[in-house]
Amino acid sequence: MKIVKILEQPVRLKSNISNALVNFSTHTVSVVAIVTDKIINGKPATGLAFNSIGRFDQSGILRNRMIPRLLSAKPGLLINPETERLCPAKVLKCAMQNEKPGGHGDRAHAASALEMAVWDLNAKLEDEPAAITIARHFGRSLAIPKISVYAAGGYYHEGQPARALQDELKGYQDSGFTMFKMKIGGAPMDQDLKRIESALEIGGAGENLAVDANGRFTLEQAIAYGQAMTPYALRWYEEPGDPLDYHLNRQLADAYEGPLATGENLFSRQDVKNLLMYAGMRRNQDIFQMDPGLSYGITEYATMITEMEKNGYDRKFAYPHGGQLMGFHIVAGLGLGGCEVYPGVFQPMGGFQDGAVIENGMATIPDAPGFGFERKSNLAVPFAELCG
Amino acid sequence: MKIVKILEQPVRLKSNISNALVNFSTHTVSVVAIVTDKIINGKPATGLAFNSIGRFDQSGILRNRMIPRLLSAKPGLLINPETERLCPAKVLKCAMQNEKPGGHGDRAHAASALEMAVWDLNAKLEDEPAAITIARHFGRSLAIPKISVYAAGGYYHEGQPARALQDELKGYQDSGFTMFKMKIGGAPMDQDLKRIESALEIGGAGENLAVDANGRFTLEQAIAYGQAMTPYALRWYEEPGDPLDYHLNRQLADAYEGPLATGENLFSRQDVKNLLMYAGMRRNQDIFQMDPGLSYGITEYATMITEMEKNGYDRKFAYPHGGQLMGFHIVAGLGLGGCEVYPGVFQPMGGFQDGAVIENGMATIPDAPGFGFERKSNLAVPFAELCG
Repeated sequence: MKIVKILEQPVRLKSNISNALVNFSTHTVSVVAIVTDKIINGKPATGLAFNSIGRFDQSGILRNRMIPRLLSAKPGLLINPETERLCPAKVLKCAMQNEKPGGHGDRAHAASALEMAVWDLNAKLEDEPAAITIARHFGRSLAIPKISVYAAGGYYHEGQPARALQDELKGYQDSGFTMFKMKIGGAPMDQDLKRIESALEIGGAGENLAVDANGRFTLEQAIAYGQAMTPYALRWYEEPGDPLDYHLNRQLADAYEGPLATGENLFSRQDVKNLLMYAGMRRNQDIFQMDPGLSYGITEYATMITEMEKNGYDRKFAYPHGGQLMGFHIVAGLGLGGCEVYPGVFQPMGGFQDGAVIENGMATIPDAPGFGFERKSNLAVPFAELCG
Repeated sequence: MKIVKILEQPVRLKSNISNALVNFSTHTVSVVAIVTDKIINGKPATGLAFNSIGRFDQSGILRNRMIPRLLSAKPGLLINPETERLCPAKVLKCAMQNEKPGGHGDRAHAASALEMAVWDLNAKLEDEPAAITIARHFGRSLAIPKISVYAAGGYYHEGQPARALQDELKGYQDSGFTMFKMKIGGAPMDQDLKRIESALEIGGAGENLAVDANGRFTLEQAIAYGQAMTPYALRWYEEPGDPLDYHLNRQLADAYEGPLATGENLFSRQDVKNLLMYAGMRRNQDIFQMDPGLSYGITEYATMITEMEKNGYDRKFAYPHGGQLMGFHIVAGLGLGGCEVYPGVFQPMGGFQDGAVIENGMATIPDAPGFGFERKSNLAVPFAELCG
């Protein structure tokens, strides 16, 4: 089989929200389609994906660097000879041809979209959900049929009073979620603590609520929040400091007894190795949130999980960032701890397929082939436009 | 004053060369121009720059993310009220608006081009070389009038026999260079050692020759090369392993007595803090090669130098990667150790102004205003085309 064309288009998200550092009203994501010469149901078999959420579209890198490399690859270079299908690792390697080491930022997000589209394609060729293709590829007997999910929200909406947070969480609860995540660090600490207490009135126990500072705090601020939040016994305390400040994380881990979570802004295996080596992350307690949709795709992400396990960390403590369908299938396929979901924000990318049922905080993977973007009606639109 | 328009264009370099990992035949760089409403000699005052060499053009990030942010900034937001000129730090902050932390890759290179163009502009408004503007800004009494330079080359040219390396180095020597850098790791070790010995026949003492592995080696390979090269007493051994593998660097520093060099693939202050903390870099011996043209510009680069000094490292051990006119002025303005030059490769970006005189390995900063791109005739062409 061969690639006939590769399409890319930036999509503007509908999100007038802010975390402690960033307003998302201008945020974009690249949707991509790898169109092949195989035919499924009378149409060219096509792999779809996007570069997760949070780091902008990568049109320039995709169109000027990576897509031309793939389209000019020698015949067979991208194919797994055993399966006669496109090989995600070979596609990634070709997309990264002649790129220097280090600097794992935007290009990692760009490459992710391409690599992930190969998984969607291969699952569609098998007429199975991507979770099953992923599980088989990595030698896992079965994808998990139900995965643990939590609703990520609690942003600082413009002009919205803090009390509205309760309505938001109640809405998630009514949809079947039992665990929630909210933002902190975008308001003075006393206000944030009140917001947390409001949220706990809905969520119940602290183990149902995580908080996310989005990398804003100095060590002193991180420790002050940690001390103030200790009585709540929260599920986790996410990204207190700069994501690359391993020393801060280690010092905070010494000072804060509860679980910490980080990793969504680390995009390569080597960065994760450094996190494991230097940041004081505690086994069977702290949470790893690397996002395969931002990190060169599943090929590289799987090596991050291997690094975790080599160092005695359990993959059940991996909860990928992203909150979209790709993460859902990856959690199920790789047997990870659980999955973030954005049920209300970052549309049309955030959340699962239409009519997805969440029961007691668990979700069943959709039976559509591939990642199942076609079953999420608002997300199907930009993909349909992309493919013409 | 205000910005009237910002222009960007990718430029393809003339380079059919390879290091141990990368072939540069398709390499591109973004040239940018910030055009203002000030008039110099009857023309709009314009700041020029490019995003160094080695990591590709950043057209997409510049055109879709950063340039629109700068053009829509509120009046005065980008201005230093004391000087009434554009403020490089404010321009950088605005260009990075609503970007999440971490992931210091392509966007760091994109932002560099914009931030550096402000320095070129401000120096032209003072009718002085950028080195002087930089020195004054950072409270240094004077820019260094002469800086130490070395010729970076010794690539693996396609089809070129190893002996041709001697002719290349002889050419640099005839131009006044006394120190050279060559690539290793792209051939088997015994061949590389012969290449080093050939180079030493021209260069004389080992202190005149540095070698660069471009991040290719495992720890075992790095140590094997280190042991084999120890008798040569080379000036430095550059980027033996992955640029983010601090642990490898530390272990090699324990095993190899000679100077190591690294940093050209670290693009933020926080990454450099990690290097200083974890990589076993030895004070008054090892070399730091961060490139301001790839790392958010001089604003961020100066904080890297501050981190070095806070940790007891001397700025005389900073030798920025890049090999072009911007690095030249920054070394002079910040009083760093010396500057890489690509006299023969990466044209039209590499090297200095036309007729630049190198004497005994020292170069005098050009007296043209700004970075002086206008005095390098082959580099003046793409800038003239950009500005129409």
